[in-house]
Amino acid sequence: MKIPKAIQRLIESFEKLPGIGPKSAQRLTFYLLHVPQHELDSFASSLQDLKKGTIICSNCFNVDESDPCSICSDKQRDRSIICVVEEPLDVLALEKGGKYKGLYHVLHGKIDPLNNIGPDEIFLPQLFERISAASANGYGDPKELIIATNPTMEGEATAMYISKNLKSQIPNLKITRIGRGLPIGADIEYADEMTLQRAMEGRNEII
Amino acid sequence: MKIPKAIQRLIESFEKLPGIGPKSAQRLTFYLLHVPQHELDSFASSLQDLKKGTIICSNCFNVDESDPCSICSDKQRDRSIICVVEEPLDVLALEKGGKYKGLYHVLHGKIDPLNNIGPDEIFLPQLFERISAASANGYGDPKELIIATNPTMEGEATAMYISKNLKSQIPNLKITRIGRGLPIGADIEYADEMTLQRAMEGRNEII
Repeated sequence: MKIPKAIQRLIESFEKLPGIGPKSAQRLTFYLLHVPQHELDSFASSLQDLKKGTIICSNCFNVDESDPCSICSDKQRDRSIICVVEEPLDVLALEKGGKYKGLYHVLHGKIDPLNNIGPDEIFLPQLFERISAASANGYGDPKELIIATNPTMEGEATAMYISKNLKSQIPNLKITRIGRGLPIGADIEYADEMTLQRAMEGRNEII
Repeated sequence: MKIPKAIQRLIESFEKLPGIGPKSAQRLTFYLLHVPQHELDSFASSLQDLKKGTIICSNCFNVDESDPCSICSDKQRDRSIICVVEEPLDVLALEKGGKYKGLYHVLHGKIDPLNNIGPDEIFLPQLFERISAASANGYGDPKELIIATNPTMEGEATAMYISKNLKSQIPNLKITRIGRGLPIGADIEYADEMTLQRAMEGRNEII
């Protein structure tokens, strides 16, 4: 028995998504066979409208409905701090806490030589330009740059690259890296070596 | 910062799928932001056309492009054996082996009292009718019914229900249940009690 073409096509569409293998793609497709047509249509239109309804901010490269985005155009936010993240989802995660009141810069990736992604393939030149031009375009002189790339090999390399480039150019810019250590709720017994080492290095005095 | 509406809508569509939680839905949606528009359009159209390009066979209730389906209309297949399965995906799995040459009957579910699914909510009445009417409508008298519902609580209950109903009605129909035991590549040490018990009960003489 051959799989009907309409089913095969949808399976292939699902398989292209990250983390969805052939079996999951089959399961999702056959699940959708039981779903009413109007729900399929609504799913389809939300896919088609995804990019039409969003725009990338020309200042921080976050994804939003307007340019400049709601964060960059918010007069309440502290323009002297910029937090560098890899992906728009990282902005969402940091905003959920609601504590951080500065601006962002979304790289849309990380330096990853194994996958042929160098500094110019992500929004890094734009970060350097933004910082050096900041006082000119009215966004105010940035005082601190928080590098919040992921604590992975590539994220650390990206952080190193940024700090090395900016330290020489703009000596009075404070460059920081988000704290690395044990996540809340973790168990020292099960923590890996690197995390423990970072946690020891990043220890704070109890006041 | 509020999530753009277009993104929120797609996240909600993904969240409705089985096995996809809020985090995965976010990840998939933000991944699709990097995908070219024509791929989004093709994904969308394959969703819209899913049900238009498929039909449920009126004989065996499998999903295919024609009615009767390619299996029911295949003259090479043995019309005297019917294999009962829960879902169309089970037909695909059994067909992949290529050994089974009989027909199927897809229930599109299982008897599941906890979720208010009784025998009449799935294609069980149609199975009984099909078997009793088989000699009349030219499909030939079925000689064997293989019940291949899943070896779960609900699958076993469904199998019991089918065999009880048919044994009294059609006494010379052979009713069988697919073998249950250790899967190939398994380790007895890690097998659960029920599987081991079934494997002992279902032991075969070595010839």
